[in-house]
Amino acid sequence: MSVTEKILKLGLPKGSLQDSTLDLFAKAGFHFSVKSRSYFPSIDDDELEAILIRAQEMAHYVELGAFDVGLTGKDWIIETDADVVEVSDLVYSKASMRPVRWVLAVPESSSIQSVQDLEGKHIATEVVNIAKKYLEKHGVSAHVEFSWGATEVKPPELVDAIVEVTETGSSLRANKLRIVDVLLESNTKLIANKDSWNDPWKREKIENMAMLLQGAINAQGKVGLKMNAPRASLDSIIGIIPALRQPTIAHLADENWVALEVIVEEQVVRSVIPELKRAGAEGIFEYNISKLID
Amino acid sequence: MSVTEKILKLGLPKGSLQDSTLDLFAKAGFHFSVKSRSYFPSIDDDELEAILIRAQEMAHYVELGAFDVGLTGKDWIIETDADVVEVSDLVYSKASMRPVRWVLAVPESSSIQSVQDLEGKHIATEVVNIAKKYLEKHGVSAHVEFSWGATEVKPPELVDAIVEVTETGSSLRANKLRIVDVLLESNTKLIANKDSWNDPWKREKIENMAMLLQGAINAQGKVGLKMNAPRASLDSIIGIIPALRQPTIAHLADENWVALEVIVEEQVVRSVIPELKRAGAEGIFEYNISKLID
Amino acid sequence: MSVTEKILKLGLPKGSLQDSTLDLFAKAGFHFSVKSRSYFPSIDDDELEAILIRAQEMAHYVELGAFDVGLTGKDWIIETDADVVEVSDLVYSKASMRPVRWVLAVPESSSIQSVQDLEGKHIATEVVNIAKKYLEKHGVSAHVEFSWGATEVKPPELVDAIVEVTETGSSLRANKLRIVDVLLESNTKLIANKDSWNDPWKREKIENMAMLLQGAINAQGKVGLKMNAPRASLDSIIGIIPALRQPTIAHLADENWVALEVIVEEQVVRSVIPELKRAGAEGIFEYNISKLID
Amino acid sequence: MSVTEKILKLGLPKGSLQDSTLDLFAKAGFHFSVKSRSYFPSIDDDELEAILIRAQEMAHYVELGAFDVGLTGKDWIIETDADVVEVSDLVYSKASMRPVRWVLAVPESSSIQSVQDLEGKHIATEVVNIAKKYLEKHGVSAHVEFSWGATEVKPPELVDAIVEVTETGSSLRANKLRIVDVLLESNTKLIANKDSWNDPWKREKIENMAMLLQGAINAQGKVGLKMNAPRASLDSIIGIIPALRQPTIAHLADENWVALEVIVEEQVVRSVIPELKRAGAEGIFEYNISKLID
Amino acid sequence: MSVTEKILKLGLPKGSLQDSTLDLFAKAGFHFSVKSRSYFPSIDDDELEAILIRAQEMAHYVELGAFDVGLTGKDWIIETDADVVEVSDLVYSKASMRPVRWVLAVPESSSIQSVQDLEGKHIATEVVNIAKKYLEKHGVSAHVEFSWGATEVKPPELVDAIVEVTETGSSLRANKLRIVDVLLESNTKLIANKDSWNDPWKREKIENMAMLLQGAINAQGKVGLKMNAPRASLDSIIGIIPALRQPTIAHLADENWVALEVIVEEQVVRSVIPELKRAGAEGIFEYNISKLID
Amino acid sequence: MSVTEKILKLGLPKGSLQDSTLDLFAKAGFHFSVKSRSYFPSIDDDELEAILIRAQEMAHYVELGAFDVGLTGKDWIIETDADVVEVSDLVYSKASMRPVRWVLAVPESSSIQSVQDLEGKHIATEVVNIAKKYLEKHGVSAHVEFSWGATEVKPPELVDAIVEVTETGSSLRANKLRIVDVLLESNTKLIANKDSWNDPWKREKIENMAMLLQGAINAQGKVGLKMNAPRASLDSIIGIIPALRQPTIAHLADENWVALEVIVEEQVVRSVIPELKRAGAEGIFEYNISKLID
Repeated sequence: MSVTEKILKLGLPKGSLQDSTLDLFAKAGFHFSVKSRSYFPSIDDDELEAILIRAQEMAHYVELGAFDVGLTGKDWIIETDADVVEVSDLVYSKASMRPVRWVLAVPESSSIQSVQDLEGKHIATEVVNIAKKYLEKHGVSAHVEFSWGATEVKPPELVDAIVEVTETGSSLRANKLRIVDVLLESNTKLIANKDSWNDPWKREKIENMAMLLQGAINAQGKVGLKMNAPRASLDSIIGIIPALRQPTIAHLADENWVALEVIVEEQVVRSVIPELKRAGAEGIFEYNISKLID
Repeated sequence: MSVTEKILKLGLPKGSLQDSTLDLFAKAGFHFSVKSRSYFPSIDDDELEAILIRAQEMAHYVELGAFDVGLTGKDWIIETDADVVEVSDLVYSKASMRPVRWVLAVPESSSIQSVQDLEGKHIATEVVNIAKKYLEKHGVSAHVEFSWGATEVKPPELVDAIVEVTETGSSLRANKLRIVDVLLESNTKLIANKDSWNDPWKREKIENMAMLLQGAINAQGKVGLKMNAPRASLDSIIGIIPALRQPTIAHLADENWVALEVIVEEQVVRSVIPELKRAGAEGIFEYNISKLID
Repeated sequence: MSVTEKILKLGLPKGSLQDSTLDLFAKAGFHFSVKSRSYFPSIDDDELEAILIRAQEMAHYVELGAFDVGLTGKDWIIETDADVVEVSDLVYSKASMRPVRWVLAVPESSSIQSVQDLEGKHIATEVVNIAKKYLEKHGVSAHVEFSWGATEVKPPELVDAIVEVTETGSSLRANKLRIVDVLLESNTKLIANKDSWNDPWKREKIENMAMLLQGAINAQGKVGLKMNAPRASLDSIIGIIPALRQPTIAHLADENWVALEVIVEEQVVRSVIPELKRAGAEGIFEYNISKLID
Repeated sequence: MSVTEKILKLGLPKGSLQDSTLDLFAKAGFHFSVKSRSYFPSIDDDELEAILIRAQEMAHYVELGAFDVGLTGKDWIIETDADVVEVSDLVYSKASMRPVRWVLAVPESSSIQSVQDLEGKHIATEVVNIAKKYLEKHGVSAHVEFSWGATEVKPPELVDAIVEVTETGSSLRANKLRIVDVLLESNTKLIANKDSWNDPWKREKIENMAMLLQGAINAQGKVGLKMNAPRASLDSIIGIIPALRQPTIAHLADENWVALEVIVEEQVVRSVIPELKRAGAEGIFEYNISKLID
Repeated sequence: MSVTEKILKLGLPKGSLQDSTLDLFAKAGFHFSVKSRSYFPSIDDDELEAILIRAQEMAHYVELGAFDVGLTGKDWIIETDADVVEVSDLVYSKASMRPVRWVLAVPESSSIQSVQDLEGKHIATEVVNIAKKYLEKHGVSAHVEFSWGATEVKPPELVDAIVEVTETGSSLRANKLRIVDVLLESNTKLIANKDSWNDPWKREKIENMAMLLQGAINAQGKVGLKMNAPRASLDSIIGIIPALRQPTIAHLADENWVALEVIVEEQVVRSVIPELKRAGAEGIFEYNISKLID
Repeated sequence: MSVTEKILKLGLPKGSLQDSTLDLFAKAGFHFSVKSRSYFPSIDDDELEAILIRAQEMAHYVELGAFDVGLTGKDWIIETDADVVEVSDLVYSKASMRPVRWVLAVPESSSIQSVQDLEGKHIATEVVNIAKKYLEKHGVSAHVEFSWGATEVKPPELVDAIVEVTETGSSLRANKLRIVDVLLESNTKLIANKDSWNDPWKREKIENMAMLLQGAINAQGKVGLKMNAPRASLDSIIGIIPALRQPTIAHLADENWVALEVIVEEQVVRSVIPELKRAGAEGIFEYNISKLID
């Protein structure tokens, strides 16, 4: 392979995921800078080239080989029926750690109670293929229309039902829609072109990227805790800590005490710290971490 | 017809045209108010109901009868092959009074020189049907892919050519693209559902709306001019004025003078005023008008 | 009176009404300029001095004579029981021309159906005195608590009912509250101190200000219309126009035509113009006016 | 106690303290999310329910039991004479670590020199009860008027003196006011309802919350320092460090050196680091901590 | 002269005057559009080309012939000692209609009382040549240093005195500076290159531009007034109106009344309207004008 | 030396460097707070006084002794020929770690190929002295004109060439300019007045400040890494780490493992972590540091 071929082409999702994606890459050690209105981020790694495109068309261009690797949702891989390698799941959406769901929804007051009631109805959606397969599977014949946006305001004025994505359901509720069925759960994935995956240099580069992205995601909900513990209480204190690994132990000048350090889930800290203090720990402090690779 | 049926359902374009459209309706005398993030503007006319939807899907929903009347581009009427009544042209886009054009564009350095060179190539566009018909007409077989956005940054990395809309060509130039051919010129149109057009009450309401919208558009590039003129120079002064209609003439206390009033194109004022002053007119002043119905 | 005493002290409402108030004064011919965060607007009239204070305390300071004249709501005059001269009503709120209402509201699901059901309950409001008098009038004993803000989110968690101001009721609906009774309708008023009103110089200054403010308000919903009319159709055309006064008539060079000019309500224009055109009027145009004193 | 009763109702201060309060809770491990214009933050703890209300009315609603626990200032507890448990002081205001002061202020040029000079004067303030008690204590009779805002611009045009809150005095200086006396110092407090405090489950929940909030406040002005020290200089280096606790000591491969780690006040670092380096420490680095519980 | 030479090159001031300048040109009938961060406005007149540059260097480039015509202050013409034609004064600054002044200012507490006290002192200014000539004229020797900005904060820390521009003096007061002397009054001017002025085609183009710019400035403080007047009161009503020219008179259907129309100074309207109404005028309305050429 | 003399006067650069400079000082432990539009930051160190002035005039005022110490570019020290002590280089500009360059640039299509072609030409620049010396050194005579801004848009309309500063060259390319020569490379420097440098108290204060600023800069591109390593693989793992110093080693409860901690360059982390993991390290995590003094 020639020197000039040692380039990995990366597709990044433009739009609502863009900022959190670039933020995730930065935490993973890849610092992109994007000029306002530009689609070509620059990056401090001569072996990487990136383009920002819509998540909806990512899988298509990874399949064609325009990108070696890209980030998109499982939903759009299915919708575009793209033949790509799914390298890893990346769950970093800010609003919630839960996957998004594509649901069939109708007006609260609609008489439609199940997919069977859709016969002959009009349905608006961004995922026309997914919706059509779903109807076909249930033996229902209906009009599926591509929706250019604001799908959730269309029923009942413009259509009878929609197939729409939701995280918490709050936008559906605000538009007085009722969920009838769930078609699909989806989350972000790192995907690779099949030929790129078979190229050893590209594959190692992609695997390292996947490891570092995962390390940055892992670190998001974790913190470091340090404390001084009386030797006499060491076992009971260790018993309290729901550590991901066993704690590090360091000396203090006073031999009756030791210093402990552990990485824990951030959300347990508010219950663990009061217990640790009651068990005799002192000088307990918490700090943030930016990557965690187990 | 029952009283409750005396409602005209109006589709307004969401997005880049929204503000200028609502502004135009306000000038025409229809004052909508839109709450942030709402798609249902309220209006001070009990016989009107409006919804904001994307221009791309307007013609479809007017054809289905979800709307009686709507605003969209000629391009999207053709793309969606919708069977609707084209009531009138509305040329009010702020950037330019020229119609927009859908063009075939390729990288400046591309070897593609005409539609014939597209054989087997990849083409990205928002108007898949228009592009396919164009290729078919020229006997060319190529891959036409729907583009979800940022079409102009795709060549040459992702596709070979694009079919994209342009007003001034500046975005194409900024992306180093060259125009190969023009597929279509387009401007905004007021369109009506065929059944609504046959309903006398709805038709009069639509025609009045068209007249008032056109009146507001007419007024945009026009101003009123008033001046005092010596009776002796009246003919030569009238000769200078490129009036849309004959001037109004009013008295002054001094019988040797008269007052003239005319509506003229705003863009001729800067050449006409110096001439009028040299011809003897005095106290020339200009004022703005908000509607003009000839 | 000495020259230096010829100063009229004016209180302007700080807060949500501030911009529309200063805008109204500008239309009336009084151009205030307010530096960011300053409470002392400067004005191009050496006989005027203005301070911005909350509408709630305006009537109190006008009564005390700290201001000669001020703008506030009828509601706050009543709440503070201030002894002032009510010079004129000023209806210029942007959201609606309707007066605001102070209403008794409870949660939609509350068992409270009338004022009688408030016995022993907790009520939050900004207008403690108005609420207490209302309860007293109905012989009900309840806890009325002053609310520092966000009154409409308090039921049912913090209180049982509220007395709150509303224009359209939309904020009440958004908080799932039901209106039980209306205590008071209110609009903005120009009020004067009693001694100032008895001073001839101040009174003329206040009356002129009232006339000009009213003139600016009058102009807001009116427009000027001009058109050319065939002499033969003059009567029928004049019959169509719902003019506030009889139209002005001017000559045209062509003696078979005359020019008409009238001031009409802006909201009738959209129905009148189509009629005028059908009746033979030509060159109809509309222009805006900035003051109208009948 | 049933499962459904295990809910702690928390009042959070709406307004200028809101962002710093939610930020403090986040550092303490309680992550609220507040939708724009909502008063009901959601929280990742099923045992907590929160409402945002003005600090002025917090103590009243904690006393009534509408909240189990809340944050407000000592000033408003006194002003509303609320009977609540003061759980702990929370000094986290961003502008300054000093408590705020309520002061009696008059125009720089006023003849008022002490509280005795207020006899018969007009005084504007938000804390009417505190002001009245202060005057009563000094045997002075004056008019105390509730001020709806912008109190500091009122003298001398509208009132003779004010009782107003100040942190640095800069707003008073900008309005050319002079401080005559200090009525009260105040800081934020965590307060609890008396019945809630007697409920063991609620009390432990409140005490844990107080501990974690205090831990987050403690961490704000502290940093961690690590360095390598020659064994020979260990004692002199430890002597330099104004550590909150004794340093942690860890090994290096080179046995002549040890690694030290301590938590210190951030503001001493700029004087300590140069000394440490001169005393032989190497590889000194500083890191941030997010909680510190001694 | 060839067709291609029929271009007038225009220099427009970049910076604080830019928006008001482009606004003035628009009112005069020249509609420039400036893309964000561009220095080359486009214009709807094929005979005009414009560049935005700093007012400080305008006169220099007009003298060199890089521009045929430009706008800058009299101050910078003097400072750069440029040999140009001063076509007309353009007084359109928003903050005030008064010319700006370049003043010698010192700290309020400085012992410097007159230019004579500057001997040996340090003076910071943007107009080094004007300051040096001023000192020379008074026989004083001092250090004049070019100031790159924020001149008014430099005394007394960095320099003893400044020569600085001021409109209202408020920035000087805010920095506690005292004005010792006025060196120069200045306002905006339209200037032309000497050769361009001698070219008949360019000269007429420049003179027309000057006339239209002046027309737009004239219109800013003027309004149109119309009213109906009883024939019996016509003379007394005309006597009240401080018209720039004699009023236009038009008929009404009722022969006892006439319609009057005049252009007046906007600032007299608030005193004239009450008088007109008292004299019997009815249906008085005011409208705005956009150009006025006497 | 008296107590009142123990003040160090510090000049900070106003403008584009301001935010990053104050941010750097904060990281170094000096927390300035700047009110909007103020030039006098306050600081939590009674021995420091700071003023914000333009970098262009900093060296001049440090030389005069108005400041004891200041930050500016090497370019402006040379341009103003100031006689100051250069204490240290501070490379903290955000856009790039490379020094900026002052270059001679001409339009892409210009015939100018080297400095020799500038004879008789017009050159615009902010660094008039540097440009003149450069021309003199090459024996070329040309017109060097001070440019007040937007230098890069002047060729070819207004001048033939420019001497302008550039970091990445992108602004030059956007204006279609070609670099002919590089006159100077420059970066930010901490400079001191010569007398201040000879004062022992001031010198120690300046040297400590330099050490802490450098410590903050050092920390920007570094992170801490911790991991657990099997004793058996310790040597190979240490061999992988490009540590700035030898790692700290701590115990774990399990004697077959040890904990390692090192500070490394952030940009090597993305290649080191995958290697460490393959070599057997576990529980690898990364954290940020805020100062690093070697």
